[in-house]
Amino acid sequence: MNIMNAVKSEGKIMYELMSRLFPICRSITGEGIRQTLSILQQHIPLSIVEVPSGTKVFDWEIPREWNIRDAYIIDPEGNKVVDFKEHNLHVVGYSIPVNRKITLEELQEHLYSLENQPDAIPYVTSYYKERWGFCITHNQRQTLKKGTYHVFIDSELKVGSLTYGEVVIPGESEKEVFLSTYICHPSMANNELSGPVMATQLIKWILQKPRRYTYRIVFIPETIGSITYLSKHLQHLKQNVIAGYNISCVGDEREFSYLPSRSGDTLSDRVALNVLKYKHPDFIRYTFLDRGSDERQYCSPGVDLPIASIMRTKFGQYPEYHTSLDNLELVTPAGLQGCYDVYTDCLELIEKNAYYQVTCFCEPQLGKRGLYPTLSTKESGKQVRTMMNFIAYADGKHDLIEIADIINVPATDLISILEQLIDSKVIICLE
Amino acid sequence: MNIMNAVKSEGKIMYELMSRLFPICRSITGEGIRQTLSILQQHIPLSIVEVPSGTKVFDWEIPREWNIRDAYIIDPEGNKVVDFKEHNLHVVGYSIPVNRKITLEELQEHLYSLENQPDAIPYVTSYYKERWGFCITHNQRQTLKKGTYHVFIDSELKVGSLTYGEVVIPGESEKEVFLSTYICHPSMANNELSGPVMATQLIKWILQKPRRYTYRIVFIPETIGSITYLSKHLQHLKQNVIAGYNISCVGDEREFSYLPSRSGDTLSDRVALNVLKYKHPDFIRYTFLDRGSDERQYCSPGVDLPIASIMRTKFGQYPEYHTSLDNLELVTPAGLQGCYDVYTDCLELIEKNAYYQVTCFCEPQLGKRGLYPTLSTKESGKQVRTMMNFIAYADGKHDLIEIADIINVPATDLISILEQLIDSKVIICLE
Amino acid sequence: MNIMNAVKSEGKIMYELMSRLFPICRSITGEGIRQTLSILQQHIPLSIVEVPSGTKVFDWEIPREWNIRDAYIIDPEGNKVVDFKEHNLHVVGYSIPVNRKITLEELQEHLYSLENQPDAIPYVTSYYKERWGFCITHNQRQTLKKGTYHVFIDSELKVGSLTYGEVVIPGESEKEVFLSTYICHPSMANNELSGPVMATQLIKWILQKPRRYTYRIVFIPETIGSITYLSKHLQHLKQNVIAGYNISCVGDEREFSYLPSRSGDTLSDRVALNVLKYKHPDFIRYTFLDRGSDERQYCSPGVDLPIASIMRTKFGQYPEYHTSLDNLELVTPAGLQGCYDVYTDCLELIEKNAYYQVTCFCEPQLGKRGLYPTLSTKESGKQVRTMMNFIAYADGKHDLIEIADIINVPATDLISILEQLIDSKVIICLE
Repeated sequence: MNIMNAVKSEGKIMYELMSRLFPICRSITGEGIRQTLSILQQHIPLSIVEVPSGTKVFDWEIPREWNIRDAYIIDPEGNKVVDFKEHNLHVVGYSIPVNRKITLEELQEHLYSLENQPDAIPYVTSYYKERWGFCITHNQRQTLKKGTYHVFIDSELKVGSLTYGEVVIPGESEKEVFLSTYICHPSMANNELSGPVMATQLIKWILQKPRRYTYRIVFIPETIGSITYLSKHLQHLKQNVIAGYNISCVGDEREFSYLPSRSGDTLSDRVALNVLKYKHPDFIRYTFLDRGSDERQYCSPGVDLPIASIMRTKFGQYPEYHTSLDNLELVTPAGLQGCYDVYTDCLELIEKNAYYQVTCFCEPQLGKRGLYPTLSTKESGKQVRTMMNFIAYADGKHDLIEIADIINVPATDLISILEQLIDSKVIICLE
Repeated sequence: MNIMNAVKSEGKIMYELMSRLFPICRSITGEGIRQTLSILQQHIPLSIVEVPSGTKVFDWEIPREWNIRDAYIIDPEGNKVVDFKEHNLHVVGYSIPVNRKITLEELQEHLYSLENQPDAIPYVTSYYKERWGFCITHNQRQTLKKGTYHVFIDSELKVGSLTYGEVVIPGESEKEVFLSTYICHPSMANNELSGPVMATQLIKWILQKPRRYTYRIVFIPETIGSITYLSKHLQHLKQNVIAGYNISCVGDEREFSYLPSRSGDTLSDRVALNVLKYKHPDFIRYTFLDRGSDERQYCSPGVDLPIASIMRTKFGQYPEYHTSLDNLELVTPAGLQGCYDVYTDCLELIEKNAYYQVTCFCEPQLGKRGLYPTLSTKESGKQVRTMMNFIAYADGKHDLIEIADIINVPATDLISILEQLIDSKVIICLE
Repeated sequence: MNIMNAVKSEGKIMYELMSRLFPICRSITGEGIRQTLSILQQHIPLSIVEVPSGTKVFDWEIPREWNIRDAYIIDPEGNKVVDFKEHNLHVVGYSIPVNRKITLEELQEHLYSLENQPDAIPYVTSYYKERWGFCITHNQRQTLKKGTYHVFIDSELKVGSLTYGEVVIPGESEKEVFLSTYICHPSMANNELSGPVMATQLIKWILQKPRRYTYRIVFIPETIGSITYLSKHLQHLKQNVIAGYNISCVGDEREFSYLPSRSGDTLSDRVALNVLKYKHPDFIRYTFLDRGSDERQYCSPGVDLPIASIMRTKFGQYPEYHTSLDNLELVTPAGLQGCYDVYTDCLELIEKNAYYQVTCFCEPQLGKRGLYPTLSTKESGKQVRTMMNFIAYADGKHDLIEIADIINVPATDLISILEQLIDSKVIICLE
């Protein structure tokens, strides 16, 4: 199996897993999350945690658990014109139960559609205010005739729990790399099933590699999930996490996006920027003011974890966002694969980033160690120049990424060079 | 009284005071200063200080006091062609007495006029070298015919004192805001009566507001006055002054100007820049190399007070500068009002600038505190976003101005937001 | 003798010395170096040091000593077509002896020429791999006919020593300025005889001036020479050297070049940049990634000497580089003089750079000390403004170069001003 096929296969595997998870109706709590995590457990050693409704988590409280069995609208002529079983976006998330006959006028107050995207079913939720509602395409909405409609939602809001999944993969060090993704969206692909399938694939990759760091990966509902997780682990995370990413919107084929941590200069940021600027120089650089996902919690004052985000098109920035058009056509195996390659580069660079120091004064004599190419070509000349440049800055005061930035090469390109130099005892790694 | 009228009225009040002060012949010492301060005392609780001639003030010495009663030139035909009583700029400041008949040729050596501005009487002084002279328009100069002229200056240079005014308004803290303006110019409007009338109006405003800081405002002659004041109060000022401005050239309607303190990064500078960049984005940004007023003394090595300047057109940068054209037409109520609004914004921002810290980990739940707008409009959305951005950086490590600069809003816009958040106990102010 | 002639004469003197040294066949070891240093001893108090072959110098070892007496190629018709005595570039440096009859085909493997510069003899060496070879013009190479050639090189590789020269000129302080140049190139002018003749002339200039600092100037073979010198003096140099330059390629008339030290912010860098940006604003600014001479050793990790380079066109950047076209036409007296003037400015600025502090609070009164020009002209106004600006920043916290950079004048222009101010006790020099 050549590398090219191997690479492609990960994109396909992620896509297949996403296709399997797609139909499930997820929300911030409930059975949909449990089903999703249960499928992921077939691939990775996932622990599942339940936190009871009503638990205080910092300034918030775990809400009641929401489940839904069925929902539909029957029109005056007796046709089931909207059916939850056809698309779970048809029901407003956290809708309370209803079973009534109402006029079209009354119904309109409970309908959500998008005039500008008349073919799309919008994604609407009401977690913190009791409400019921249906989401339909604007085209369909305009065909509704006057008369009496039967609206039916068989849902339940009850004391239950919030569910999340967690994987901890020990490394040589107690210092941790933290990855977070969310599993609270119903049938949408980029935002968000791309994150959970990417995280799952990265866990497989991490498990088969030697590891300097411990890895902690969480699958949580957005906002309330990260707040809950932080409320249980804040001190541990603050002490140990040295880098990490919030993984969301990683599956389409458009340009890459980078959203920094709050401080913008953490290891996560430096790694992401070095990888993106060479591999995907047209990537879009956002600021923390453009935040919108769980970086809002991870980077909040006093929490201050070094969490950045690498995405394809950012949430809120693509037309299909939060509609039924964010589907399995928008996300592709190639789109997932490209972002997976960036994330594995980043994790590899986090592993290798360190302070390196040359072991002799003045330039080492590379010739006597066979580090000069025997055949001098343009490519080998460039390679030697990069090696000499790396040595010139391997002063124990610039870390690998700083050196890469100074000598203007991808830091990942320096990894094989520094391994050769360590083998030849020309440099040592300072810990 | 609505706000619009209130705002306009301050410009008018300042303009009326300026009109009253305009005819007085001021210099760096003498009766003109005393008359001026005496009129100001009718508006503000001004203390008047006299420092005797000959007093050593750092590297300088208080000069003799200069007073003038009358001055004129009578031409060969007996006409009084130049008369101090018509315009006090006609006499070179600090002219020694003279009463002679001289030829036109001899007279020419004592005349000052501007070839490029033939209608303007220039402003000329000779504080530190004994001299006498007359200033006239270039047009008039060219009409002078050969013959014998009678030149008469009834002035006096005597041991007396240097006079200045001072107001200290106590606040909660001993830390001080320092404002300085000068009262040494004869009949010119922008440079300089705009400064004293602005300082007077600001004192009235300060007196009617709750105050965190103590305010110290001085009305002094330029250069020798600030050196004198510093020689008497240097240690106190160095220990207590946290911000301040030199107020000069604040009355015309042209674009705003900013001249930094020597270090350029004091609280005064940061406040001025934040206010100007949003309210008057076309303001002209000078460097300390463009200095020319009392910032030269306040920011000198070892003095190092945090004093910047916010002006309309800067001294030396407008054609009417230091001529009779700098008059009550150049300065307007609207020109004064605009600059007054900037200064009150700056003082308000100095009062409110502090380190604020959010009281919980992760984002606070604004909804349960009624901090989310009930009606969602574009404007309210922007307001909530600004509030969330403020909270995201309210980490006790960035002060109000830093946060405003990061989240790209006028810091004064954050004041009502932070007051709401303090009331809701979402943030606290660190002192 | 007026200054203009004096200036010109140094360029001429350097050019004459270069012309005398030009014919000698130098390499990294051997008699050519000794002859060269012996001629320099006629001009400057040079100590000559011999370091035996085989001596370990950090990661390297002193190679065997190479000497050559004669070398030629005789063509099939008996003509001596290549003759070392005509141009010493004809023989590959460090060629082992040979005396054989070979075919043209075999000969071709030992010939070096430049297709793109068919009139130039290239400069080729093989210090660390045993080899023999001849360098000829490409034009000549193409005239060679089939047949048997007699190749003869009467050279010797033997245990001997590496030779270098050194001058130490004591100053008031033990702190040192370090200059380094190399003497290992055969008959080429800009790279490299311009450096040794420039260093020689600078030594004469240093000797006749009062000196705050001690000066250390070395004449060494490139790379192995600087490594050798560092291996013997590293601790001393690290403790004492405050600034210095690697002097190479300083004789043509093209634009100036600046190559920074590794850190880029040493005194040497700041001095070079301040001098070049005003005197030669079109100078080319390289980065340390463009390095190629002994700055590679002086600035290596752990050595970290503050050594930068000021050149005319940089090594490797001009077409004549490392060929017979780098000759006494490329380098001119005017080219040498221009660079000499820059280096003397730099050394003068290093001597004068210090922290200066004004002795009074507020602006000093310059008038009473006669520091105001009696005749006010545009030029004198500018001079006073520069003096006032210097005083405004003479706070004991900005050194001379920082002040010059802030007030935007050549630092060398401030030297006479600060001497006046010290004489008038307006400022003092902090040591």
